[in-house]
Amino acid sequence: MRKVCVVVLSRANYGRIKSALRAIRDHPDLELQLVVGASALLEKYGSAVDIIRKDGFEPDARIHIIIEGENPTTMAKSTGLGLLELPTIFESLRPDVVLTVADRFETISTAIAATYMNIPLAHVQGGEITGSIDDSVRHAVTKLAHVHFPATKLSGERIIRMGEEPGRVHVTGDPAMDILAETSLEIDNDLFKRYGGVGPTLNLKKPYLLVVQHPVTNEYENALAQINETLHAVYDFKMPTIWLWPNVDAGSDRISKGIRMFREKYGPDFIHFFKNFSVEDYARVMNNSACVVGNTSSSLREGAFLGAPTVNIGSRQNGRERGANVIDVGYDRNAILAAISRQVEHGRYESDHLYGDGKSGKRIADILATCELNVKKRMTY
Amino acid sequence: MRKVCVVVLSRANYGRIKSALRAIRDHPDLELQLVVGASALLEKYGSAVDIIRKDGFEPDARIHIIIEGENPTTMAKSTGLGLLELPTIFESLRPDVVLTVADRFETISTAIAATYMNIPLAHVQGGEITGSIDDSVRHAVTKLAHVHFPATKLSGERIIRMGEEPGRVHVTGDPAMDILAETSLEIDNDLFKRYGGVGPTLNLKKPYLLVVQHPVTNEYENALAQINETLHAVYDFKMPTIWLWPNVDAGSDRISKGIRMFREKYGPDFIHFFKNFSVEDYARVMNNSACVVGNTSSSLREGAFLGAPTVNIGSRQNGRERGANVIDVGYDRNAILAAISRQVEHGRYESDHLYGDGKSGKRIADILATCELNVKKRMTY
Amino acid sequence: MRKVCVVVLSRANYGRIKSALRAIRDHPDLELQLVVGASALLEKYGSAVDIIRKDGFEPDARIHIIIEGENPTTMAKSTGLGLLELPTIFESLRPDVVLTVADRFETISTAIAATYMNIPLAHVQGGEITGSIDDSVRHAVTKLAHVHFPATKLSGERIIRMGEEPGRVHVTGDPAMDILAETSLEIDNDLFKRYGGVGPTLNLKKPYLLVVQHPVTNEYENALAQINETLHAVYDFKMPTIWLWPNVDAGSDRISKGIRMFREKYGPDFIHFFKNFSVEDYARVMNNSACVVGNTSSSLREGAFLGAPTVNIGSRQNGRERGANVIDVGYDRNAILAAISRQVEHGRYESDHLYGDGKSGKRIADILATCELNVKKRMTY
Amino acid sequence: MRKVCVVVLSRANYGRIKSALRAIRDHPDLELQLVVGASALLEKYGSAVDIIRKDGFEPDARIHIIIEGENPTTMAKSTGLGLLELPTIFESLRPDVVLTVADRFETISTAIAATYMNIPLAHVQGGEITGSIDDSVRHAVTKLAHVHFPATKLSGERIIRMGEEPGRVHVTGDPAMDILAETSLEIDNDLFKRYGGVGPTLNLKKPYLLVVQHPVTNEYENALAQINETLHAVYDFKMPTIWLWPNVDAGSDRISKGIRMFREKYGPDFIHFFKNFSVEDYARVMNNSACVVGNTSSSLREGAFLGAPTVNIGSRQNGRERGANVIDVGYDRNAILAAISRQVEHGRYESDHLYGDGKSGKRIADILATCELNVKKRMTY
Repeated sequence: MRKVCVVVLSRANYGRIKSALRAIRDHPDLELQLVVGASALLEKYGSAVDIIRKDGFEPDARIHIIIEGENPTTMAKSTGLGLLELPTIFESLRPDVVLTVADRFETISTAIAATYMNIPLAHVQGGEITGSIDDSVRHAVTKLAHVHFPATKLSGERIIRMGEEPGRVHVTGDPAMDILAETSLEIDNDLFKRYGGVGPTLNLKKPYLLVVQHPVTNEYENALAQINETLHAVYDFKMPTIWLWPNVDAGSDRISKGIRMFREKYGPDFIHFFKNFSVEDYARVMNNSACVVGNTSSSLREGAFLGAPTVNIGSRQNGRERGANVIDVGYDRNAILAAISRQVEHGRYESDHLYGDGKSGKRIADILATCELNVKKRMTY
Repeated sequence: MRKVCVVVLSRANYGRIKSALRAIRDHPDLELQLVVGASALLEKYGSAVDIIRKDGFEPDARIHIIIEGENPTTMAKSTGLGLLELPTIFESLRPDVVLTVADRFETISTAIAATYMNIPLAHVQGGEITGSIDDSVRHAVTKLAHVHFPATKLSGERIIRMGEEPGRVHVTGDPAMDILAETSLEIDNDLFKRYGGVGPTLNLKKPYLLVVQHPVTNEYENALAQINETLHAVYDFKMPTIWLWPNVDAGSDRISKGIRMFREKYGPDFIHFFKNFSVEDYARVMNNSACVVGNTSSSLREGAFLGAPTVNIGSRQNGRERGANVIDVGYDRNAILAAISRQVEHGRYESDHLYGDGKSGKRIADILATCELNVKKRMTY
Repeated sequence: MRKVCVVVLSRANYGRIKSALRAIRDHPDLELQLVVGASALLEKYGSAVDIIRKDGFEPDARIHIIIEGENPTTMAKSTGLGLLELPTIFESLRPDVVLTVADRFETISTAIAATYMNIPLAHVQGGEITGSIDDSVRHAVTKLAHVHFPATKLSGERIIRMGEEPGRVHVTGDPAMDILAETSLEIDNDLFKRYGGVGPTLNLKKPYLLVVQHPVTNEYENALAQINETLHAVYDFKMPTIWLWPNVDAGSDRISKGIRMFREKYGPDFIHFFKNFSVEDYARVMNNSACVVGNTSSSLREGAFLGAPTVNIGSRQNGRERGANVIDVGYDRNAILAAISRQVEHGRYESDHLYGDGKSGKRIADILATCELNVKKRMTY
Repeated sequence: MRKVCVVVLSRANYGRIKSALRAIRDHPDLELQLVVGASALLEKYGSAVDIIRKDGFEPDARIHIIIEGENPTTMAKSTGLGLLELPTIFESLRPDVVLTVADRFETISTAIAATYMNIPLAHVQGGEITGSIDDSVRHAVTKLAHVHFPATKLSGERIIRMGEEPGRVHVTGDPAMDILAETSLEIDNDLFKRYGGVGPTLNLKKPYLLVVQHPVTNEYENALAQINETLHAVYDFKMPTIWLWPNVDAGSDRISKGIRMFREKYGPDFIHFFKNFSVEDYARVMNNSACVVGNTSSSLREGAFLGAPTVNIGSRQNGRERGANVIDVGYDRNAILAAISRQVEHGRYESDHLYGDGKSGKRIADILATCELNVKKRMTY
């Protein structure tokens, strides 16, 4: 019985890995261990831990590691704090393999803790390219990991080109797609009751925009100016809009401030701001939106599967594989506005399995149950 | 005037980078900032900081980060502690570029702190392969670094194959070779007065062995058995021997214990144990030894330059480039003994510039003064 | 020339110690070293560091130590982080004496770091009693400190009764009073321009309330209900009101949430919310208010000096010495409302020098320049 | 069923609390939780954790917190690390009360973590006076603690004089005495087989000295000179001697170095050095020794109960209550030598119950099961 310890450090992490968590828990040869920490514990970022528990997963440990400041210094220090906490927890849980997800800054602490402690490390979503600091984190984690679960064929090839042994690379697709395949994606207006937020109640049976724009960590000083362009474009488009608050990266306080200042000044009466949704509700909101606007990877990934018309702003997703559903624009209110118009007019795209076919979680669990777990890896050249 | 911050976390780090430190300090367009920490501060590991100061370098900051335990858990936690401390220091020193050396476990904290804080990171000695956990650290640091100073042509090619932009890769040679080129390598018996240690005073004008054997971090549970084989081989060879205590990795306490137990039991009267030498004295000791025994990378690297006959034991240097001066053996007292005999008989080898021509420090400083320092890097495929 | 290192970890700390900072800096036999950290660095809590720099003090070091969560677990951990950071800084600054202020949870890290490093510790504002967790912190710091600067005669006597040597106890008064004595306390409406905040612009020449209510750390689960009572009382009183956001203690997110919910629901058009004022502006706002409402110690301390009518709510100030200007009430909207009415009707009280005569900063600097600094202290019984 | 969490951070802590651990575990209304950390985990300090487990206690959590350096800076930082680790563990164990022991520097992290998390804190051995830095720690912990278990009547009175509520103070005696009362104190020579150590095997049926000398933390720069005086006195007395290595405080490396240098130089053939004993064996060794020499508190405490002739050197025990069995001397080889002679001649003293009657552990458990556990405490004046 292999003990698989999954470390979830943000709400995005959880959305990405949820179906794999379930498949691991339900696998006869696996035992699930769950560590929840960082922004996944914070009310300010939507208390992912509450959603996780409501979904039936009880954390074996919790780690508070986010040092306030939301700047590059505290990003680094928070990661250091993670790396102080996780070894104590791994020593107590004694997992046979640790599973880490994607590329957020603090996830490298999971990778280092496991690797240094001679615990095999599995990594979901390696090999992708996006053009941000996340690239460095993601590829560094790849060089530490012992088992790779890339989402796309191209990502898998990149991992092998980086010198990883091909036998350790398993193209499983992204487990985030599984949720889309399983869930009824019809939307209802209870959303407003369930999640609160601020702003008017919208009629989601009518066309609406979904906006999700995060700070770009190596451009964080421009975060305020960048969000302003999007705010003005959306304000001018005048379609009912669901807007999600940004994540915890350096710069997020500037984005939040920008949004708050805009609200005070323009008091837009057709935009509703939410902190967070469950994974399923987020899928519903995206699936029924007339257009997704911002720079979230989900509109390229889940968006491909759902065929959601997307306006992708700025450099955050540079280099990430994308399907036909995406139009790219710069930080410019006019360009953003024009792209939104085009996408709303075009409507829904064909579903594209680029990032997974909806069966990835099960696949990951099966491989974890049977693959060789060997910490001595060799570069292939 | 670019501020170059060099972070030195062990005596080995310092030996490796010393000539570059000098070249940076003396360069008209560079300002040297020096952070010294981890085992480089500890008496137990030879107080490298004292040597550093005697060499005329005054640390701008010191960080105590080694958590006691000498096991994989504390290795990970110590690295986390480094990652908590360094951002505070970088925020205060505001370097234009951070220089990190090689691949010891705690050095990844330097790499992450700099990268997350958007400070360009230069890395000396990337691209090598050794077969130990250090490989993962070294390659992960490569994926974080913005400027690469590999020692050998082959290492440089590997870095490029890993997806790094070729314009960021500069094959400079290893600055550790510079010391060898500059120093008078004649030996005298003052060594015993200067460094103390325990055991008899040896006549270094006559043939002697040099033994340096570190723990292998992912085999650390066997460290005691492994060192015993070497101890018996050396004991049977009966040639005067200089033996260096191991470094601070997981397992070093077992090696130390093994040595102490052996001493208590056999009381060998021809072995002298030292804690540490200055970089120059270490070169002298190696240059004049009849044979170097153990698993230190220096016998492959400096050993090539000096033509020092070497018996390399076990897996620690697997995959590392080597010249004609090395015979590889397993953890077996008979094999070790036989190889020592052969090497002592063979005597000195030709000098081989595989790892550098003795001018690397200057080269590194010149590049740091002029190269583009851009934190936005892209994978090349 | 004695080096005096003052550690300021919150905006309240700074307000309390400002005049002493100036007196130390200007003293011919003293050199001021300043460390700023914790919530004093955070925009969310009013970026005290910006005010400090505008006042002409340049921090020698900054430490980010607040771990997000705002609960008892993260309060403890943040203190631990302070205790990891400060020794590195003290080792670099090498102060002859460290000065710590009052009793906030994270200040004990300053006290421990200094004491353990054999650096004499001076403590401003020991010996008081308030009935909250702060009592334990304050008295524990007293038992660590080597020089005591209590504000009141009674506090000084308590310190001596706790076993401290009388020769180490100097009743100096609270330096916070100095600001009141020196500053022109006339108010103008530029406040709204200078500090922004949210809500209507008020006419401060007419009567207004000042509300400052912090969470009570060992009742933090009731913070939401407690703030609601105050909100309703103030809402019913219908006098223009200046309201300050709470500090960073456990429970502050609940208070913030309560305020936000109230605003969304009732949209009060006569309350203006501010994040923070400079020390001087805060004194002006208090001095001109018709009544101070809440649980801030400043309304008992500065309030006594200014004769400001005060309604003190709940247990947070239990046991603190108070003058005639204070009416105490429980967490009950009706009682609060009645007390506000009475105080507004009563108007200004006589000035009371209970907490200082306005010359404390100078007194503290003089003593620090001349007193014996001996870390070997003995309990007197 | 109350959950009592005991935090053991050194071998001395464990010896002191062992009988209480057993009584808590066996109490029908209590559940024992055990956290072991700091030097109690380190081989170098005798791996107390191994003894603890052999005694049948399985730790619920382990924390590595000792940062290498053995100087005041790392003492402070190690305490900070403890304060980072313990809240995570308390959050997971959810104890109803935390029990902390005595006064070593790192124990204040236990006290702060519990107090800040609103967990009632019980403290064993408060109220004593010794004249060292430990005094400050001990009294600061008293001001944080909610339940006090002093060893002596005088200590209990001091706690009350410091302002603690009398109802919270229970004079239980020191549970370390319980071991003495229960154990057969006959000695045998198997000691040398069981504990190894270095030096000759001694005949313990004949008179021997026991030496235990720790560094004095605020005199740690003189540690080397101080130990030298003792070494010479013992060397001159020429009686077979059992010598214990010092604990982990600042200065211990200097003492260790002093001992090693002395050994190399004089090669005394009648001194055997041990790292550590079980609590019982330590009692046996003390009980049968002709004289205890050094500065350990055990020779004043356990020594009183056993009537062991004691020569107490220097300032470390200043102010500690003592019985008739103790002669105090300064750091002077002649004075030490003379005192040893007098004590050996005098022989065994009467047993004195000053520090406990041998039933303290049970008493502590009974009180913990029934006392009010209220975190809101008030100073009594």
